[in-house]
Amino acid sequence: MAENFETALIAYARKVEAKLEVLLPFLAGNRLQDAMRYAALSEGKRLRPFFVLASAKLHGVSEPRALTVAAALEMIHCYSLVHDDLPAMDNDNLRRGRATTHKKFDEATAILAGDALLTFAFEVLAEAGESSVLIAALARAAGPRGMAGGQMLDIEAETKGFASLNDISKMQRQKTGALFEFACTAGPMMAGEDVTAMHDYAENIGLAFQIADDILDVESTSTALGKATQKDSTQGKATFVDFFGLDGAKQEASRLVENAKAALVTYEASVEMLREAADFMIARRK
Amino acid sequence: MAENFETALIAYARKVEAKLEVLLPFLAGNRLQDAMRYAALSEGKRLRPFFVLASAKLHGVSEPRALTVAAALEMIHCYSLVHDDLPAMDNDNLRRGRATTHKKFDEATAILAGDALLTFAFEVLAEAGESSVLIAALARAAGPRGMAGGQMLDIEAETKGFASLNDISKMQRQKTGALFEFACTAGPMMAGEDVTAMHDYAENIGLAFQIADDILDVESTSTALGKATQKDSTQGKATFVDFFGLDGAKQEASRLVENAKAALVTYEASVEMLREAADFMIARRK
Repeated sequence: MAENFETALIAYARKVEAKLEVLLPFLAGNRLQDAMRYAALSEGKRLRPFFVLASAKLHGVSEPRALTVAAALEMIHCYSLVHDDLPAMDNDNLRRGRATTHKKFDEATAILAGDALLTFAFEVLAEAGESSVLIAALARAAGPRGMAGGQMLDIEAETKGFASLNDISKMQRQKTGALFEFACTAGPMMAGEDVTAMHDYAENIGLAFQIADDILDVESTSTALGKATQKDSTQGKATFVDFFGLDGAKQEASRLVENAKAALVTYEASVEMLREAADFMIARRK
Repeated sequence: MAENFETALIAYARKVEAKLEVLLPFLAGNRLQDAMRYAALSEGKRLRPFFVLASAKLHGVSEPRALTVAAALEMIHCYSLVHDDLPAMDNDNLRRGRATTHKKFDEATAILAGDALLTFAFEVLAEAGESSVLIAALARAAGPRGMAGGQMLDIEAETKGFASLNDISKMQRQKTGALFEFACTAGPMMAGEDVTAMHDYAENIGLAFQIADDILDVESTSTALGKATQKDSTQGKATFVDFFGLDGAKQEASRLVENAKAALVTYEASVEMLREAADFMIARRK
């Protein structure tokens, strides 16, 4: 992992957290706000915000403007984690090394905090005067044809399984790919410029990220990841590793990362950090 | 109840349902879409969409444009019902005379269908090119300082109770008042005109509606309402009826309706239907 990228990732994460702190200040006696803060301000890689900020920089969009979009996207990512962890969904007690929101508070509060983070993300974007094009893109990425639809397919697979590589790819494109695609294309969208190159980059890193997740799920431990591992195999749900084999999955992930880097060829400069970010998608230790 | 208003309410409801049917078409084998349709297309008064359409008409906004906003608002109202009915929240099995969404499907599907309806509402508005002012107003009304925050206060009152009329009014202004306010001001907002009169109208009818709800909760039966009654008193949660008494509550509701009507004085014509709508807020039989 290049020093350059890791340093930038951490620096951007701190800026996004500072922005989230401003957007979600502590309010004494406000239980909903407490739960929203717990869900949004816990430690995280802030990978989706990174891609917003990096793609914005590549397209000459100011950092303050990009930070608002990055924070809104992170709130949507965090809401999805809160709801996915609920007993009726994945029933997880541990997330980023801490109690999940419904364990720390209660289920009703976790449901509402998720709802409120999702809604507030759109409030923040709209109040900042972002275009309806950008807002529509985020809603599409998070909604029934994006993340929410992907989570439904993932839940259905618990009983039906995944019949083919195509099924699992479709689920992952919706469940996690769509938000990465929004993140990577947010820069050109804000600048009113062509999104094609960043769209190709995003498609490849999104899938690579998921394959790397499935590999980590097999190879890592709960302690290192800060969340439960080997859930998919326990639930009898096929993963990319099942379809490709462990070595095949690693090769496929590498191939996708090379594709992602190649997509950046249209940018003549300033792309080194995004190339390193592509490497990071599968070199993660957690 | 004047014939004029009741006819218009039903006619508008059918138009909103036709719009929802277009926005949420049947998709074979799509469980999430099935659940979204179940939640959004079930029979309802479509009161919030009515106020969008009526206020749009008053401000010369085209009906097709207003129908998109009305349908988006109804999706948000329906999502809130799906989540409020969940076992971890109000734990209701009956809604509009049918099984609630989590009883018809399952909890995970109901949580996701609610999330998806909420997100899709913003997608629909943004894709239609509505302004960030309007989108921000809806997100504010539905979010932590609006509906979601109000639902949290209502849940907290199950253990803490409501200490004062001010507490219960604050909860109701957020939980139900905020969406009514959005509905009534959507017309002038779309037209880029002054929202003051419709804002005053909305504040008064929103509160009147809640007081009428509490009165119905005491006086009506589950069969007539199509949902559980006397839940508040069973839960030991104070209502407007507790603070005002039954007769006092009726008088207060009437006073608010008169205030609402008076707010319309700035409109020189075309207001008769909204006056009748104000009467309807407390004359409802269900």
